[in-house]
Amino acid sequence: MKALYAHAAHDLRLEPCEDAVPEPGHVAIRMRRGGICGSDLHYYHHGGFGTVRLREPMILGHEVAGEVSALGDGVTGLSVGDLVAVSPSRPCGGCGECLRGLPNQCLNMRFYGSAMPFPHIQGAFRETLVAHAAQCVKADGLSAAQAAMAEPLAVCLHAVRNAGEMLGRRVLVTGCGPIGVLTILAARRAGAAEIIATDIADAVLDFAKAAGADVVLNTRTAPDALKPYQQAKGSMDIHFECSGAESALAAGIAALRPRGVLVQLGLSGDMTLPMMQVTAKELMLRGSFRFHEEFAIAVDLMRKGLIDVTPLITHSYPLIEFETAFATASDRSKAMKVQLEFT
Amino acid sequence: MKALYAHAAHDLRLEPCEDAVPEPGHVAIRMRRGGICGSDLHYYHHGGFGTVRLREPMILGHEVAGEVSALGDGVTGLSVGDLVAVSPSRPCGGCGECLRGLPNQCLNMRFYGSAMPFPHIQGAFRETLVAHAAQCVKADGLSAAQAAMAEPLAVCLHAVRNAGEMLGRRVLVTGCGPIGVLTILAARRAGAAEIIATDIADAVLDFAKAAGADVVLNTRTAPDALKPYQQAKGSMDIHFECSGAESALAAGIAALRPRGVLVQLGLSGDMTLPMMQVTAKELMLRGSFRFHEEFAIAVDLMRKGLIDVTPLITHSYPLIEFETAFATASDRSKAMKVQLEFT
Amino acid sequence: MKALYAHAAHDLRLEPCEDAVPEPGHVAIRMRRGGICGSDLHYYHHGGFGTVRLREPMILGHEVAGEVSALGDGVTGLSVGDLVAVSPSRPCGGCGECLRGLPNQCLNMRFYGSAMPFPHIQGAFRETLVAHAAQCVKADGLSAAQAAMAEPLAVCLHAVRNAGEMLGRRVLVTGCGPIGVLTILAARRAGAAEIIATDIADAVLDFAKAAGADVVLNTRTAPDALKPYQQAKGSMDIHFECSGAESALAAGIAALRPRGVLVQLGLSGDMTLPMMQVTAKELMLRGSFRFHEEFAIAVDLMRKGLIDVTPLITHSYPLIEFETAFATASDRSKAMKVQLEFT
Amino acid sequence: MKALYAHAAHDLRLEPCEDAVPEPGHVAIRMRRGGICGSDLHYYHHGGFGTVRLREPMILGHEVAGEVSALGDGVTGLSVGDLVAVSPSRPCGGCGECLRGLPNQCLNMRFYGSAMPFPHIQGAFRETLVAHAAQCVKADGLSAAQAAMAEPLAVCLHAVRNAGEMLGRRVLVTGCGPIGVLTILAARRAGAAEIIATDIADAVLDFAKAAGADVVLNTRTAPDALKPYQQAKGSMDIHFECSGAESALAAGIAALRPRGVLVQLGLSGDMTLPMMQVTAKELMLRGSFRFHEEFAIAVDLMRKGLIDVTPLITHSYPLIEFETAFATASDRSKAMKVQLEFT
Repeated sequence: MKALYAHAAHDLRLEPCEDAVPEPGHVAIRMRRGGICGSDLHYYHHGGFGTVRLREPMILGHEVAGEVSALGDGVTGLSVGDLVAVSPSRPCGGCGECLRGLPNQCLNMRFYGSAMPFPHIQGAFRETLVAHAAQCVKADGLSAAQAAMAEPLAVCLHAVRNAGEMLGRRVLVTGCGPIGVLTILAARRAGAAEIIATDIADAVLDFAKAAGADVVLNTRTAPDALKPYQQAKGSMDIHFECSGAESALAAGIAALRPRGVLVQLGLSGDMTLPMMQVTAKELMLRGSFRFHEEFAIAVDLMRKGLIDVTPLITHSYPLIEFETAFATASDRSKAMKVQLEFT
Repeated sequence: MKALYAHAAHDLRLEPCEDAVPEPGHVAIRMRRGGICGSDLHYYHHGGFGTVRLREPMILGHEVAGEVSALGDGVTGLSVGDLVAVSPSRPCGGCGECLRGLPNQCLNMRFYGSAMPFPHIQGAFRETLVAHAAQCVKADGLSAAQAAMAEPLAVCLHAVRNAGEMLGRRVLVTGCGPIGVLTILAARRAGAAEIIATDIADAVLDFAKAAGADVVLNTRTAPDALKPYQQAKGSMDIHFECSGAESALAAGIAALRPRGVLVQLGLSGDMTLPMMQVTAKELMLRGSFRFHEEFAIAVDLMRKGLIDVTPLITHSYPLIEFETAFATASDRSKAMKVQLEFT
Repeated sequence: MKALYAHAAHDLRLEPCEDAVPEPGHVAIRMRRGGICGSDLHYYHHGGFGTVRLREPMILGHEVAGEVSALGDGVTGLSVGDLVAVSPSRPCGGCGECLRGLPNQCLNMRFYGSAMPFPHIQGAFRETLVAHAAQCVKADGLSAAQAAMAEPLAVCLHAVRNAGEMLGRRVLVTGCGPIGVLTILAARRAGAAEIIATDIADAVLDFAKAAGADVVLNTRTAPDALKPYQQAKGSMDIHFECSGAESALAAGIAALRPRGVLVQLGLSGDMTLPMMQVTAKELMLRGSFRFHEEFAIAVDLMRKGLIDVTPLITHSYPLIEFETAFATASDRSKAMKVQLEFT
Repeated sequence: MKALYAHAAHDLRLEPCEDAVPEPGHVAIRMRRGGICGSDLHYYHHGGFGTVRLREPMILGHEVAGEVSALGDGVTGLSVGDLVAVSPSRPCGGCGECLRGLPNQCLNMRFYGSAMPFPHIQGAFRETLVAHAAQCVKADGLSAAQAAMAEPLAVCLHAVRNAGEMLGRRVLVTGCGPIGVLTILAARRAGAAEIIATDIADAVLDFAKAAGADVVLNTRTAPDALKPYQQAKGSMDIHFECSGAESALAAGIAALRPRGVLVQLGLSGDMTLPMMQVTAKELMLRGSFRFHEEFAIAVDLMRKGLIDVTPLITHSYPLIEFETAFATASDRSKAMKVQLEFT
């Protein structure tokens, strides 16, 4: 069995990985599709981000779907052959955060493909994955490619929930990579009445438009494009900041009306904020991180046709072509979501 | 100019009504369509409901749309010929409730077609209506029939907001008249993942199904149909009670999971509740009444194609045929929403 | 070792009970004080309440404090001789409700002295109790009598949290038994600006007054006493209903202003509500049941002198005098909280 | 009649000011006490703050109390001789923010002693003030000095409300000037179980301790003092940042547990935040600005003895000694709240 390891920046290797037999309560999954996420790209390009650094070889990948190939003892509700989306989130269930209902904040989280603790948590870009049955959500009716979108969609559903009331709201989304565009889909699904999306690349703004954004603005070619929304004390109710760019954060703070909500999704380093506006307009800035029950909801909404992620999956490559896949995923002028094909 | 007056139960009359010239800030509207609401039917059949009784002739109607025919001084943003949905809600803007942001709870409300204070608040079923410009929401792109649905849709959007987080939730709707079916549309628009609808008439359940309910149940022909949802401590997150029937309320209380939310929309008299379950499961029962900013949101969502009310408008009759219209509206086996045509 | 068993209505017996050695993680507690709760009285007088009935002998009691007398393996943070308040709440930690942060709604709850499942959950009125260390909260600085008040105080802190924002609010409390009076203390601690308390017995109203109620009203001798608070749409922000009386519920619904919150604490059977007012004023009715993290908070607030429960503990009797204790506890004209002394 | 004008930085002058007769609905108030606020000191030392600059002479002051000396027509509920606390907040009541229940965010706010619009809004440090009756809250039972504390206390009550649930919470307050110490009082009043306060001056920490802080830490002399609270993902529930110091903000972000709430009260310029922690811990940062209904609540809580501000009023000077008063107020090693005596 092969898996895709990151050894260091610009050093990915397809290497053997030990096969595992599912313990009780677990299943083996023959991997079908795996999406390349921004954090995978960070490991690939920089060997990590912030203080999170690769210190040993780590299997990448946490946006995956496959077919159940073997069942451990005691597994019910799943059968061999079932297509499943696999949640990369493995909270401990016993720490203080888990027990107060915040499993995404688990103090002992073992999230696939994460260099945060050491030894690192190995990821899911492997031909066969053994996972707990509870991580698997049946995805019949979806393609494996769609099912592998459950994870990033869950991130965005979680962010939309963190933003509070969405029905009839005016929403700004800054940064239209996969997370930004999925947030547009999620915000619309939750009833947003008007969605303004910004980015600095026309290519991704086309995806934002197709996903339902009412207005798309290129803030590189038209730096003042958000001005009309920043009149008086601002006019937007909610801002999803998905770019990690300080200028986007500041633009949103100016565009939000009093008591508006800003949800920061993009991981970023230190950022300088106009705190006077935050205080005087009583804005609410919230971080949003990962997800929990939203993973099953993501699959459910896709299966019912209530959210369609298909247009976002722009490229897929056989596992062996991982170099091309990562290069393509790094090029925002060409790609939205790039996936690896495992079989 | 003619208007439709209710004099007493079963005593509707098309009678002359004084023409008015719009004062500053107001507009005259040539009425086009007016929907018959449950409260109109109450006045028609019973001369009122509860302690609210007709004490003088009152023009009925509060779900209306028409074309602007004259502008008072100082009106901006509207032109003669514009199709507008007209909000029947006229809060005072100065009482304690208005000033704490609850205009739908205004202590001096003058809601069209309401016998609550005396003299009664005259309604909008008249050939020409003079209204404040702020009551008018431009509805270009909609038909007059659709625009006249803004009011009941706003009621349901308000109820959905009162229910809290909707994205990914499991929702029960009891009672599938126009309010129930519009609530299904609104809950879906706000991201409900699963919607179960019940009624005692198959005819309206077909509308519920067409509006997007995942499961429809006739609780007359299958009284135990909700049992599976009431296992253990219940499985539904939210219950919209739109029937006013005590048995529906009780069924929902049994079906709600701990901390579930029950929103009561249907006006009703005293009802007996299983308070032990309410307490032990820590349920939250909320009343929902009318709307405020949701009126403009209703028009906006319809114009953007995000909510389609068209299938609900089953009948329309020229004003002169008001007797037939009210009779049809009273027959749940035939009609969903019945409208009057004014021109 | 002796324990106090309820065999049936009016059949309490002090009988031998097997001694237990603490397993790992557990401690033995030499009981010192145990308060008699309304549910204990229900078993005593009626053999249960509603559908919850005694079907086998059950040890009563769940408001207890004592001294640690032995430590099981692996227990840290507790020493022999420590005075501890013991939480009677034992959620499973693994069910759906526990995992979404609602342990008080645990589907497998084993709450001391509860006839809800069968076999019943045995209670804590015994000379020595073995409990999990996590149930024990150190109470140094408190008397055993005070520590044994942690449980009912926790119930009321939980109810106050369920009511939402309390700072500066106008609060109505109906029913001034121990739960009502502790709710007054808790609501004041949480910042209530004005507290109106009602009951039908002057004796308990004196306790309400002493606990800080600004106004106390006997609604038996002055049935119209709440009228001034029910003018227009009502003037109270929050109503804690602690009496279980339908008339108190109705009076509160009339006194609450629009969007007011009513928290039902008292267990009760079916109750008839004026639903028209609930709907039209958009009231929020919430059940409140038991507690979780509030148990430790209760001990903490008492230890810091931020809540003083001492005046409520009106009587205590040696265990052997349990008959007198239960009789006294049943007489609202004499007793507020009655406790048993175990050593 | 004299008033205290700021002409520019370090240029305060006691100059004549036109007397006014109260219009209908207004009252004249013979000023008694006026507290010097941080913003008054900013005008005094720097001629403004950020982009808010003095451009014409402006009467300072907005924390005032006095005695009603004349009544305009139609005023009820006030009598000549009444001691009143006067709210400096004058929202328009008609803009979008007012009408959605956010008067403190009024788009046309005329808050006393503010250079924000031009012409500036003249302040309340004058011998006689004419104000709308609705700005006046009767303060009988309080001293004028206490009544003049209603304004800063209202700011802190508003902040505490913005922080959400306080009962039983662990609270960090950074910056222990008057606003910080009043926040301690307000948080305790709202049920905070543990309060940690930090500053860089021992003198003010003594006030924090006296106000009820459980732990006070001098982060200048003991820079690592907050370390124990920052273990793992942090342990504090709520952080009130009252210092305007970037380092205090950062320390609080590290000390907050997941989903913790940070309320920024101190006005400040741009600040650099560790956004990675904000995102990963899903913190909620809220600005808090001024107040509205909290002004009357502040008076109410003081009158009932539920909050005692007396120890904070460390100095008062006759109006003529304004130079000494402002110098004293600028010296944190000596003064907490400094007031002017008008008569």
